[in-house]
Amino acid sequence: MGVNNSTFELTVLGCSGGPVAGKTCAFLLKPSSISFQEALENELDCILALEAGAGIETIAEMISDCRKNTSSVSSYFSQLYSNAEDPSYYSDNNDLIKTQPFEDVSKDPANSSLQLAKEILNCMSAYIITHPHLDHVLGLVINSPCFTRQTPIYGTQQTIDNLKDHIFNGKVWPPLSYLTFNYLQPYTENFNITESIAVETFQVSHGFTSPKELYKSSAFLFTETNDKGKLLFFGDVESDLSSNTKYNQHIWLTVADHILSKKLKAIVIECSSVDKKPGQPLFGHMTPINLISELLNLQNICLEKKATKHPLAGLNVLIIHVKEAFDHLGDPRKQVLESLRRLNQKHDLRINFTICMPGISYFI
Amino acid sequence: MGVNNSTFELTVLGCSGGPVAGKTCAFLLKPSSISFQEALENELDCILALEAGAGIETIAEMISDCRKNTSSVSSYFSQLYSNAEDPSYYSDNNDLIKTQPFEDVSKDPANSSLQLAKEILNCMSAYIITHPHLDHVLGLVINSPCFTRQTPIYGTQQTIDNLKDHIFNGKVWPPLSYLTFNYLQPYTENFNITESIAVETFQVSHGFTSPKELYKSSAFLFTETNDKGKLLFFGDVESDLSSNTKYNQHIWLTVADHILSKKLKAIVIECSSVDKKPGQPLFGHMTPINLISELLNLQNICLEKKATKHPLAGLNVLIIHVKEAFDHLGDPRKQVLESLRRLNQKHDLRINFTICMPGISYFI
Repeated sequence: MGVNNSTFELTVLGCSGGPVAGKTCAFLLKPSSISFQEALENELDCILALEAGAGIETIAEMISDCRKNTSSVSSYFSQLYSNAEDPSYYSDNNDLIKTQPFEDVSKDPANSSLQLAKEILNCMSAYIITHPHLDHVLGLVINSPCFTRQTPIYGTQQTIDNLKDHIFNGKVWPPLSYLTFNYLQPYTENFNITESIAVETFQVSHGFTSPKELYKSSAFLFTETNDKGKLLFFGDVESDLSSNTKYNQHIWLTVADHILSKKLKAIVIECSSVDKKPGQPLFGHMTPINLISELLNLQNICLEKKATKHPLAGLNVLIIHVKEAFDHLGDPRKQVLESLRRLNQKHDLRINFTICMPGISYFI
Repeated sequence: MGVNNSTFELTVLGCSGGPVAGKTCAFLLKPSSISFQEALENELDCILALEAGAGIETIAEMISDCRKNTSSVSSYFSQLYSNAEDPSYYSDNNDLIKTQPFEDVSKDPANSSLQLAKEILNCMSAYIITHPHLDHVLGLVINSPCFTRQTPIYGTQQTIDNLKDHIFNGKVWPPLSYLTFNYLQPYTENFNITESIAVETFQVSHGFTSPKELYKSSAFLFTETNDKGKLLFFGDVESDLSSNTKYNQHIWLTVADHILSKKLKAIVIECSSVDKKPGQPLFGHMTPINLISELLNLQNICLEKKATKHPLAGLNVLIIHVKEAFDHLGDPRKQVLESLRRLNQKHDLRINFTICMPGISYFI
C-alpha cells in the first residue's frame, strides 16, 4: 500500500502520552490526494485537526527543519533516549512513511516558518477532540490567539462542555470569539466534518474518576467521501476487560464489515506503556497484552461474519500515546513494538504494526 | 555585578507570552551560592519553581544540549525569526548571563538527560504560581506524573482554587496525590518558601474578564535570607493606568526603600508586545510605554524618599513574556528592547534592561 493507493495523509505533530510536554497528541488528517501546498493555495476545506496536544510551534519547527534539511522533530526522541531509532525502525510497513510533509510549503521564501505555520493553522476546516485532557488540547488553547478566521471545534457533549466550563472560562484561559463549539452525537449518522471527510462518533472508556464514575473518551471512524476508504481513530482508551464495558466490542462489530470489504485502511490506537505486573493500575490505558486481546476480539468477529483465514492480515495498526519512561531500558516505543510483534506472531494475526513518530506523515 | 556578587540564580526554562507553546513562562530560582549539582547531591531544600509554563522536557533538552555542546534552547528563536540574535545582544548587562546552567549536572554519564531532568524536577522545594493561565502552569500539569515525592504548590486563593476546581478536577486532569496545594495571603509577612528564600505576596491587575470583573495576578518579592538581597517578580501584569487601580503603586512604595538601600537586585516584569495604536486593547499586559511609565512612578517615589539623583541607575530590569509576532519585522524582542532603550535614554533613567531568553541562567 504505497502513497499512490492511499486514502488519507495522517500527519503527526505529536503522539507522546506524556509526562513530557511539547509533543503530546496532535494530528492533521486530510485526503492524501491533496497536498498541503494545494490546500493552502486554494484555501480548500480539507484539513482536519485531530486532537490538539501540540500545534503551531511544531509545524513551524517542521518547516524550519525542511529548510535546514535536518529532521530534529523526528529525532526528538534521540535527545531523550540513547537507543532511539529512525522512524523506519518502528514500522512493519515502510511504504506508509513520508518524512518532511511540509517540504513544498517550506519553499515559500517570502515567509518565516512561523508565518507559514500560522497560515497552515488557519487552513484547518475544524478541530475534532476525543476528550478534554490537557495532553490532547493544550496546543489549541495556547495557540488560540493565532486564529484569524472562525474555526469550529467538535467533540461529544462531555468534551465540549468541559472545554467551555473548565478551560475557556476566563479563569484558566480567555474565551475567544474565533472558536465555535459544536456537539457530536455518538452512534448516529456520518457527519461531513470537512468537504471530503465524514465522521461517525463512538464512546469509549478511559478509566474511572471515582470508583463508580467512568471517564469517557471518544473514537472516530473517518470516511473519505470519494473513495470510501476508512480510518478508525482512538484517542485514549482502555480495554473492555479493564473497564468491564462493551464499548470497544461495539466498535469492532461496526468495523468488521469494513475490514472484510478492505475499506478500513488503518486503526490508530493507543498503547501507552509496556505490560505491567498483575494488579498494577493502568489508569484507563492499554498495554500490548490489552491491545492484542482487543484485536483478537476483532478477529473473532470477522471470522464469525465470513469464513476467511487471517482476516486482519495486512491491516495497518498505528500506535500512538506511548508514555515516556525513566528506567534504564531507554525508548519505551521499542519495548512496546517488540511486545506487539511477539504477540502478533504468537497469535498469527499478521497485522502490520507501526509506532507513530512526531514530524512524520503516514499515507494510509 | 558579576556572578560572585550575585544573590540569586534565575534559570529561564521559558519566557514566551505565547501564542507559541513549548517555551512559555517557567523559571527556577535559587541562591546563586549553591549550584544545581550541589543541590541535587545533597538534596538541599533550595530550588523554587517559579511559574510552570514549561518543565522537564526543557530541562532534558538543556542537559542534552550541554552534552552535544550545542545551544538549541537559546537559539530556539532563530527557528522562528530570521533576525534573532545571541542572548548577549538582548542585555545591557552581560555580567548577568550564564549559558548552560546544567553543565555540571550533565556530566553524570550513568543517566539519560530525561532521567537527570526528572531528578532536578524532584529536587524542587515548591512551586509558586502567579495566576492559573495555562501558559504559566501547563508544565506542572503535564509533568505531574513525574513527581516521586510530595511537592507543595503555592499561590493566592484565586490561583489555587482555580487549579483545583478547573484543572486538577478529574475532567481536565486527574488530581494527583503527590501535589499539595497551599494558600499565600497577599500583603502579609514574609514566608520562608525554601530554607533560604522568603516571599512576600502582592496582588496585581491582569485585565478584565468582563467589563466589571478585574482578573488578578500576583507579584512576589523574594528575599535571600542570608545576604538579604531581594528580587521582585511579576507574572502577567498591566499598568495602573490601564487597570485604573493602585496595585503597582503599592508595590513601588514597598520596594523603593530596598532600591535606595541597594538590596533590590532586580525586577523581573513582563513587556508583552510593542506599543500599540491608541485604542487597541492590551488584554491586561504591558508595552514599553506602559512599563516606562510604571518605572517613572517608581523613580518618583524613590526621589521623594531621598534626595539622590538617578535612583534607578544600574537597576536590572529583566523582561519576560514577550509574545511571538507574525509580522515581517521578525523577533519582537528586538523591537521591545529598542523601544525600552530609547525611552530609558529619553527619561535618563539609567536602568539596565535585559530581555530574558530560554535556556539561560541570570545571576542577579
